[in-house]
Amino acid sequence: MTIKVHGSPVSTASMRVFACLHEKGVPFEFVPVNLAVGEHKSEAFLSLNPFGQVPALQDGDLTLFESRAITNYIAHVYADSGNQLICKDPKKMAICSVWMEVEAHQFDPASSKLTWELCLKPLFGMTTDDAVVAEFEAKLGKVLDIYEARLSKSKYLGGDSFTLADLHHLPNMKYLMPSKAAQLFNSRPHVSAWAADILARPAWLKASGQ
Amino acid sequence: MTIKVHGSPVSTASMRVFACLHEKGVPFEFVPVNLAVGEHKSEAFLSLNPFGQVPALQDGDLTLFESRAITNYIAHVYADSGNQLICKDPKKMAICSVWMEVEAHQFDPASSKLTWELCLKPLFGMTTDDAVVAEFEAKLGKVLDIYEARLSKSKYLGGDSFTLADLHHLPNMKYLMPSKAAQLFNSRPHVSAWAADILARPAWLKASGQ
Repeated sequence: MTIKVHGSPVSTASMRVFACLHEKGVPFEFVPVNLAVGEHKSEAFLSLNPFGQVPALQDGDLTLFESRAITNYIAHVYADSGNQLICKDPKKMAICSVWMEVEAHQFDPASSKLTWELCLKPLFGMTTDDAVVAEFEAKLGKVLDIYEARLSKSKYLGGDSFTLADLHHLPNMKYLMPSKAAQLFNSRPHVSAWAADILARPAWLKASGQ
Repeated sequence: MTIKVHGSPVSTASMRVFACLHEKGVPFEFVPVNLAVGEHKSEAFLSLNPFGQVPALQDGDLTLFESRAITNYIAHVYADSGNQLICKDPKKMAICSVWMEVEAHQFDPASSKLTWELCLKPLFGMTTDDAVVAEFEAKLGKVLDIYEARLSKSKYLGGDSFTLADLHHLPNMKYLMPSKAAQLFNSRPHVSAWAADILARPAWLKASGQ
Protein backbone atom coordinates (compact mmCIF):
# COMPACT_ATOMS: atom_id res chain seq x y z
CA MET A 1 0.00 0.00 0.00
CA THR A 2 1.40 3.42 -0.98
CA ILE A 3 2.31 5.81 1.79
CA LYS A 4 0.13 8.94 1.83
CA VAL A 5 1.46 12.29 3.00
CA HIS A 6 -1.18 14.88 3.81
CA GLY A 7 0.58 18.22 3.70
CA SER A 8 1.30 21.47 1.96
CA PRO A 9 4.24 22.40 -0.29
CA VAL A 10 4.68 25.71 1.60
CA SER A 11 4.85 24.07 5.05
CA THR A 12 8.37 23.58 6.39
CA ALA A 13 7.26 20.51 8.36
CA SER A 14 5.77 18.93 5.22
CA MET A 15 8.96 19.64 3.23
CA ARG A 16 10.98 17.84 5.92
CA VAL A 17 8.95 14.67 5.28
CA PHE A 18 9.09 15.00 1.46
CA ALA A 19 12.89 15.38 1.68
CA CYS A 20 13.21 12.24 3.78
CA LEU A 21 11.02 10.16 1.44
CA HIS A 22 13.00 11.32 -1.61
CA GLU A 23 16.33 10.55 0.14
CA LYS A 24 15.08 7.03 0.81
CA GLY A 25 13.56 6.65 -2.68
CA VAL A 26 10.26 5.62 -1.11
CA PRO A 27 7.28 6.29 -3.40
CA PHE A 28 4.38 8.18 -1.83
CA GLU A 29 1.10 9.84 -2.68
CA PHE A 30 0.90 13.52 -1.84
CA VAL A 31 -2.53 14.57 -0.55
CA PRO A 32 -2.66 18.39 -0.58
CA VAL A 33 -4.18 20.09 2.47
CA ASN A 34 -5.39 23.61 1.66
CA LEU A 35 -4.16 25.70 4.59
CA ALA A 36 -5.63 28.91 3.11
CA VAL A 37 -9.18 27.63 3.63
CA GLY A 38 -8.37 25.98 6.99
CA GLU A 39 -8.60 22.40 5.74
CA HIS A 40 -6.07 21.43 8.45
CA LYS A 41 -8.71 22.31 11.06
CA SER A 42 -11.45 20.21 9.37
CA GLU A 43 -12.87 17.15 11.10
CA ALA A 44 -11.37 14.89 8.43
CA PHE A 45 -7.86 16.25 9.00
CA LEU A 46 -8.21 16.36 12.79
CA SER A 47 -8.87 12.61 12.68
CA LEU A 48 -5.31 12.28 11.29
CA ASN A 49 -3.69 14.86 13.59
CA PRO A 50 -5.76 16.17 16.52
CA PHE A 51 -3.42 19.18 16.75
CA GLY A 52 -4.53 20.33 13.29
CA GLN A 53 -1.05 20.75 11.83
CA VAL A 54 0.42 19.39 8.61
CA PRO A 55 1.85 16.94 7.75
CA ALA A 56 0.25 13.62 8.62
CA LEU A 57 1.39 10.31 7.19
CA GLN A 58 -0.61 7.15 6.55
CA ASP A 59 1.21 3.88 6.02
CA GLY A 60 -1.43 1.17 5.87
CA ASP A 61 -3.25 1.27 9.22
CA LEU A 62 -0.59 3.45 10.83
CA THR A 63 -1.21 7.19 11.09
CA LEU A 64 1.59 9.47 12.24
CA PHE A 65 2.04 13.20 12.74
CA GLU A 66 4.85 15.51 13.95
CA SER A 67 7.34 15.78 11.08
CA ARG A 68 10.42 14.65 13.03
CA ALA A 69 8.63 11.51 14.31
CA ILE A 70 7.65 10.76 10.70
CA THR A 71 11.21 11.16 9.34
CA ASN A 72 12.54 8.95 12.13
CA TYR A 73 9.99 6.29 11.26
CA ILE A 74 10.85 6.40 7.54
CA ALA A 75 14.60 6.39 8.21
CA HIS A 76 14.30 3.32 10.48
CA VAL A 77 11.70 1.29 8.58
CA TYR A 78 13.34 1.92 5.19
CA ALA A 79 16.88 1.72 6.59
CA ASP A 80 18.06 -0.35 3.62
CA SER A 81 16.60 1.84 0.86
CA GLY A 82 18.16 4.94 -0.70
CA ASN A 83 20.55 7.03 1.38
CA GLN A 84 21.31 6.06 4.97
CA LEU A 85 19.99 8.83 7.25
CA ILE A 86 20.67 7.32 10.67
CA CYS A 87 23.62 5.62 12.36
CA LYS A 88 23.49 2.01 13.51
CA ASP A 89 26.23 2.39 16.12
CA PRO A 90 24.52 3.49 19.38
CA LYS A 91 27.20 6.06 20.28
CA LYS A 92 27.15 7.60 16.80
CA MET A 93 23.35 7.55 16.87
CA ALA A 94 23.43 9.35 20.23
CA ILE A 95 25.54 12.15 18.73
CA CYS A 96 23.07 12.37 15.81
CA SER A 97 20.21 12.59 18.31
CA VAL A 98 21.94 15.43 20.14
CA TRP A 99 22.10 17.48 16.92
CA MET A 100 18.53 16.55 15.98
CA GLU A 101 17.46 17.96 19.36
CA VAL A 102 19.65 21.04 18.77
CA GLU A 103 17.81 21.64 15.48
CA ALA A 104 14.43 21.28 17.22
CA HIS A 105 15.18 23.38 20.30
CA GLN A 106 17.87 25.87 19.23
CA PHE A 107 17.81 26.32 15.42
CA ASP A 108 14.11 25.91 14.69
CA PRO A 109 12.67 28.48 17.15
CA ALA A 110 14.94 31.26 15.81
CA SER A 111 14.87 30.30 12.13
CA SER A 112 11.10 29.70 12.04
CA LYS A 113 10.49 33.15 13.50
CA LEU A 114 12.74 34.69 10.82
CA THR A 115 11.04 32.64 8.07
CA TRP A 116 7.71 34.01 9.25
CA GLU A 117 8.84 37.64 9.50
CA LEU A 118 11.09 37.84 6.41
CA CYS A 119 9.47 35.41 3.99
CA LEU A 120 5.89 34.45 4.86
CA LYS A 121 4.51 37.77 6.17
CA PRO A 122 5.45 39.63 2.94
CA LEU A 123 3.86 36.76 0.96
CA PHE A 124 0.60 37.28 2.87
CA GLY A 125 0.73 41.09 2.49
CA MET A 126 1.65 41.59 6.16
CA THR A 127 4.37 43.92 7.48
CA THR A 128 7.68 42.54 8.72
CA ASP A 129 8.52 43.61 12.30
CA ASP A 130 12.13 44.82 12.11
CA ALA A 131 12.65 44.66 15.88
CA VAL A 132 11.62 41.01 15.95
CA VAL A 133 13.92 40.31 12.98
CA ALA A 134 16.87 41.92 14.79
CA GLU A 135 16.16 39.95 17.97
CA PHE A 136 15.96 36.60 16.20
CA GLU A 137 18.88 37.29 13.85
CA ALA A 138 20.97 37.77 16.98
CA LYS A 139 19.62 34.51 18.44
CA LEU A 140 20.21 32.55 15.23
CA GLY A 141 23.69 34.07 14.93
CA LYS A 142 24.63 32.67 18.35
CA VAL A 143 23.35 29.23 17.37
CA LEU A 144 25.30 29.37 14.10
CA ASP A 145 28.48 30.32 15.95
CA ILE A 146 28.23 26.94 17.67
CA TYR A 147 27.44 25.26 14.33
CA GLU A 148 30.56 26.89 12.85
CA ALA A 149 32.71 25.34 15.59
CA ARG A 150 31.01 21.96 15.20
CA LEU A 151 31.29 21.96 11.38
CA SER A 152 34.97 22.91 11.54
CA LYS A 153 35.54 19.48 13.14
CA SER A 154 32.83 17.37 11.53
CA LYS A 155 31.65 17.49 7.90
CA TYR A 156 28.00 17.14 8.94
CA LEU A 157 26.27 17.95 12.22
CA GLY A 158 25.72 14.33 13.22
CA GLY A 159 29.13 13.08 12.05
CA ASP A 160 30.91 12.16 8.80
CA SER A 161 27.80 11.60 6.73
CA PHE A 162 24.54 13.40 5.99
CA THR A 163 21.77 12.34 8.40
CA LEU A 164 18.38 13.47 9.65
CA ALA A 165 20.29 15.90 11.89
CA ASP A 166 21.17 17.89 8.76
CA LEU A 167 18.02 17.16 6.75
CA HIS A 168 15.69 18.66 9.35
CA HIS A 169 17.31 22.09 8.80
CA LEU A 170 16.58 22.29 5.06
CA PRO A 171 13.07 23.77 4.92
CA ASN A 172 13.81 26.89 6.99
CA MET A 173 17.13 27.31 5.13
CA LYS A 174 15.29 27.24 1.80
CA TYR A 175 13.14 30.16 2.95
CA LEU A 176 15.98 32.12 4.55
CA MET A 177 18.70 31.81 1.89
CA PRO A 178 17.06 34.25 -0.55
CA SER A 179 16.42 36.70 2.37
CA LYS A 180 18.72 39.08 4.21
CA ALA A 181 19.18 36.40 6.89
CA ALA A 182 21.35 34.50 4.36
CA GLN A 183 24.32 36.54 5.58
CA LEU A 184 24.09 34.70 8.92
CA PHE A 185 24.98 31.50 7.05
CA ASN A 186 27.25 33.02 4.38
CA SER A 187 29.46 34.90 6.84
CA ARG A 188 30.49 31.66 8.56
CA PRO A 189 32.72 29.60 6.21
CA HIS A 190 31.96 26.12 7.51
CA VAL A 191 28.25 26.82 7.91
CA SER A 192 28.21 28.31 4.41
CA ALA A 193 29.88 25.23 2.86
CA TRP A 194 27.55 22.90 4.77
CA ALA A 195 24.47 24.87 3.69
CA ALA A 196 25.55 24.86 0.01
CA ASP A 197 26.23 21.12 0.20
CA ILE A 198 22.97 20.02 1.76
CA LEU A 199 20.78 22.46 -0.21
CA ALA A 200 22.16 20.96 -3.45
CA ARG A 201 21.20 17.35 -2.65
CA PRO A 202 19.09 15.86 -5.47
CA ALA A 203 16.45 14.62 -3.01
CA TRP A 204 16.08 18.11 -1.58
CA LEU A 205 15.78 19.71 -5.03
CA LYS A 206 12.97 17.25 -5.76
CA ALA A 207 11.30 17.73 -2.36
CA SER A 208 11.32 21.51 -2.61
CA GLY A 209 10.07 21.51 -6.20
CA GLN A 210 13.21 23.05 -7.72
CA MET B 1 33.25 3.63 34.10
CA THR B 2 30.41 5.35 35.97
CA ILE B 3 28.18 7.68 34.00
CA LYS B 4 28.46 11.30 35.11
CA VAL B 5 25.50 13.68 34.93
CA HIS B 6 26.38 17.36 35.18
CA GLY B 7 23.16 19.11 36.14
CA SER B 8 21.03 20.82 38.73
CA PRO B 9 18.25 19.37 40.90
CA VAL B 10 16.01 22.38 40.08
CA SER B 11 16.40 22.02 36.30
CA THR B 12 13.52 20.25 34.56
CA ALA B 13 15.87 18.96 31.86
CA SER B 14 18.22 17.48 34.48
CA MET B 15 15.31 15.81 36.30
CA ARG B 16 14.28 14.17 33.02
CA VAL B 17 17.67 12.48 32.84
CA PHE B 18 17.73 11.49 36.54
CA ALA B 19 14.26 9.92 36.13
CA CYS B 20 15.42 7.88 33.15
CA LEU B 21 18.55 6.61 34.91
CA HIS B 22 16.53 5.58 37.99
CA GLU B 23 13.93 3.81 35.81
CA LYS B 24 16.74 1.82 34.20
CA GLY B 25 18.52 1.23 37.52
CA VAL B 26 21.75 2.58 36.02
CA PRO B 27 24.15 3.95 38.65
CA PHE B 28 25.53 7.41 37.99
CA GLU B 29 27.56 10.14 39.60
CA PHE B 30 25.78 13.48 39.95
CA VAL B 31 28.05 16.47 39.33
CA PRO B 32 26.22 19.60 40.54
CA VAL B 33 26.38 22.68 38.30
CA ASN B 34 25.68 25.87 40.25
CA LEU B 35 23.30 27.81 38.01
CA ALA B 36 23.05 30.69 40.51
CA VAL B 37 26.71 31.62 39.94
CA GLY B 38 26.57 30.92 36.20
CA GLU B 39 28.69 27.79 36.30
CA HIS B 40 26.79 26.54 33.21
CA LYS B 41 28.37 29.41 31.24
CA SER B 42 31.92 28.60 32.43
CA GLU B 43 34.53 27.40 29.97
CA ALA B 44 34.66 24.00 31.69
CA PHE B 45 30.92 23.46 31.26
CA LEU B 46 30.84 24.89 27.72
CA SER B 47 33.32 22.18 26.75
CA LEU B 48 30.58 19.67 27.66
CA ASN B 49 27.67 21.61 26.12
CA PRO B 50 28.52 24.62 23.93
CA PHE B 51 24.95 25.92 24.42
CA GLY B 52 25.62 26.34 28.14
CA GLN B 53 22.56 24.46 29.36
CA VAL B 54 22.27 21.62 31.87
CA PRO B 55 22.36 18.66 31.81
CA ALA B 56 25.37 17.09 30.11
CA LEU B 57 26.21 13.41 30.36
CA GLN B 58 29.59 11.70 30.16
CA ASP B 59 29.74 7.98 29.50
CA GLY B 60 33.41 7.10 29.03
CA ASP B 61 34.63 9.13 26.05
CA LEU B 62 31.09 10.02 24.97
CA THR B 63 29.69 13.43 25.92
CA LEU B 64 26.03 14.18 25.29
CA PHE B 65 23.69 17.10 25.91
CA GLU B 66 20.00 17.87 25.23
CA SER B 67 17.99 15.95 27.82
CA ARG B 68 15.76 14.07 25.35
CA ALA B 69 18.78 12.85 23.34
CA ILE B 70 20.31 11.64 26.62
CA THR B 71 17.18 9.74 27.73
CA ASN B 72 16.94 8.14 24.28
CA TYR B 73 20.55 7.01 24.52
CA ILE B 74 20.09 5.55 28.00
CA ALA B 75 16.82 3.82 27.05
CA HIS B 76 18.44 2.21 23.99
CA VAL B 77 21.88 1.32 25.39
CA TYR B 78 20.45 -0.04 28.65
CA ALA B 79 17.40 -1.58 26.94
CA ASP B 80 17.68 -4.76 29.02
CA SER B 81 18.08 -3.10 32.44
CA GLY B 82 15.30 -1.88 34.71
CA ASN B 83 12.00 -0.79 33.20
CA GLN B 84 11.54 -0.87 29.43
CA LEU B 85 11.05 2.73 28.23
CA ILE B 86 10.94 2.23 24.47
CA CYS B 87 9.16 -0.14 22.09
CA LYS B 88 11.01 -2.62 19.90
CA ASP B 89 8.24 -2.91 17.32
CA PRO B 90 8.84 -0.15 14.71
CA LYS B 91 5.16 0.82 14.39
CA LYS B 92 4.72 1.01 18.17
CA MET B 93 7.99 2.94 18.43
CA ALA B 94 6.72 5.37 15.78
CA ILE B 95 3.61 6.07 17.88
CA CYS B 96 5.85 6.62 20.93
CA SER B 97 7.98 9.02 18.88
CA VAL B 98 4.89 10.99 17.86
CA TRP B 99 4.00 11.57 21.51
CA MET B 100 7.60 12.35 22.44
CA GLU B 101 7.50 15.07 19.77
CA VAL B 102 4.12 16.25 21.08
CA GLU B 103 5.65 16.65 24.53
CA ALA B 104 8.57 18.62 23.08
CA HIS B 105 6.58 20.88 20.74
CA GLN B 106 3.12 21.18 22.29
CA PHE B 107 3.27 20.40 26.04
CA ASP B 108 6.71 21.74 26.92
CA PRO B 109 6.41 25.29 25.50
CA ALA B 110 3.16 25.95 27.41
CA SER B 111 4.04 24.08 30.61
CA SER B 112 7.58 25.50 30.86
CA LYS B 113 6.20 29.03 30.57
CA LEU B 114 3.74 28.30 33.39
CA THR B 115 6.46 26.68 35.51
CA TRP B 116 8.51 29.84 35.09
CA GLU B 117 5.66 32.25 35.88
CA LEU B 118 3.91 30.33 38.68
CA CYS B 119 6.76 28.46 40.37
CA LEU B 120 10.23 29.79 39.56
CA LYS B 121 9.60 33.56 39.45
CA PRO B 122 8.13 33.58 42.99
CA LEU B 123 11.11 31.48 44.12
CA PHE B 124 13.48 34.15 42.77
CA GLY B 125 11.46 37.04 44.28
CA MET B 126 10.09 38.07 40.87
CA THR B 127 6.47 38.98 40.10
CA THR B 128 4.22 36.55 38.22
CA ASP B 129 2.65 38.08 35.09
CA ASP B 130 -1.05 37.13 35.33
CA ALA B 131 -1.73 37.89 31.64
CA VAL B 132 1.02 35.51 30.55
CA VAL B 133 -0.34 32.87 32.96
CA ALA B 134 -3.85 33.22 31.49
CA GLU B 135 -2.51 32.96 27.92
CA PHE B 136 -0.47 29.84 28.61
CA GLU B 137 -3.12 28.18 30.79
CA ALA B 138 -5.43 28.46 27.78
CA LYS B 139 -2.74 26.96 25.52
CA LEU B 140 -1.96 24.11 27.92
CA GLY B 141 -5.70 23.47 28.35
CA LYS B 142 -6.08 22.90 24.61
CA VAL B 143 -3.12 20.50 24.60
CA LEU B 144 -4.57 18.61 27.57
CA ASP B 145 -7.96 18.31 25.82
CA ILE B 146 -6.17 16.26 23.18
CA TYR B 147 -4.34 14.28 25.90
CA GLU B 148 -7.71 13.55 27.53
CA ALA B 149 -8.99 12.05 24.27
CA ARG B 150 -5.77 10.07 23.76
CA LEU B 151 -5.69 8.77 27.35
CA SER B 152 -9.34 7.69 27.18
CA LYS B 153 -8.21 5.14 24.55
CA SER B 154 -4.66 4.34 25.69
CA LYS B 155 -3.39 3.92 29.26
CA TYR B 156 -0.18 5.83 28.47
CA LEU B 157 0.57 8.37 25.76
CA GLY B 158 2.81 6.06 23.74
CA GLY B 159 0.66 2.93 24.18
CA ASP B 160 -0.14 0.30 26.83
CA SER B 161 3.00 0.82 28.87
CA PHE B 162 4.94 3.70 30.43
CA THR B 163 7.64 4.99 28.05
CA LEU B 164 9.85 8.02 27.52
CA ALA B 165 6.78 9.69 25.96
CA ASP B 166 5.28 9.87 29.48
CA LEU B 167 8.53 10.28 31.43
CA HIS B 168 9.51 13.47 29.62
CA HIS B 169 6.43 15.23 31.06
CA LEU B 170 7.28 14.61 34.72
CA PRO B 171 9.54 17.56 35.61
CA ASN B 172 7.13 20.32 34.54
CA MET B 173 4.24 18.40 36.14
CA LYS B 174 6.14 18.24 39.42
CA TYR B 175 6.38 22.04 39.44
CA LEU B 176 2.82 22.67 38.27
CA MET B 177 0.89 20.20 40.48
CA PRO B 178 1.26 22.27 43.67
CA SER B 179 0.28 25.44 41.72
CA LYS B 180 -3.06 26.75 40.50
CA ALA B 181 -2.31 25.18 37.09
CA ALA B 182 -2.98 21.76 38.71
CA GLN B 183 -6.68 22.27 37.93
CA LEU B 184 -5.83 21.93 34.24
CA PHE B 185 -4.78 18.35 34.96
CA ASN B 186 -7.27 17.56 37.74
CA SER B 187 -10.34 18.70 35.79
CA ARG B 188 -9.73 16.11 33.06
CA PRO B 189 -10.38 12.60 34.48
CA HIS B 190 -8.05 10.58 32.24
CA VAL B 191 -5.27 13.17 32.40
CA SER B 192 -5.69 13.30 36.18
CA ALA B 193 -5.42 9.50 36.57
CA TRP B 194 -2.39 9.40 34.23
CA ALA B 195 -0.68 12.23 36.14
CA ALA B 196 -1.28 10.54 39.52
CA ASP B 197 0.03 7.25 38.14
CA ILE B 198 3.27 8.51 36.60
CA LEU B 199 4.06 10.99 39.41
CA ALA B 200 3.92 8.08 41.90
CA ARG B 201 6.52 5.94 40.12
CA PRO B 202 9.33 4.95 42.52
CA ALA B 203 12.01 6.05 40.03
CA TRP B 204 10.42 9.48 39.78
CA LEU B 205 10.16 9.86 43.56
CA LYS B 206 13.88 9.10 43.75
CA ALA B 207 14.77 11.38 40.83
CA SER B 208 12.85 14.32 42.22
CA GLY B 209 14.22 13.87 45.72
CA GLN B 210 10.86 13.02 47.35
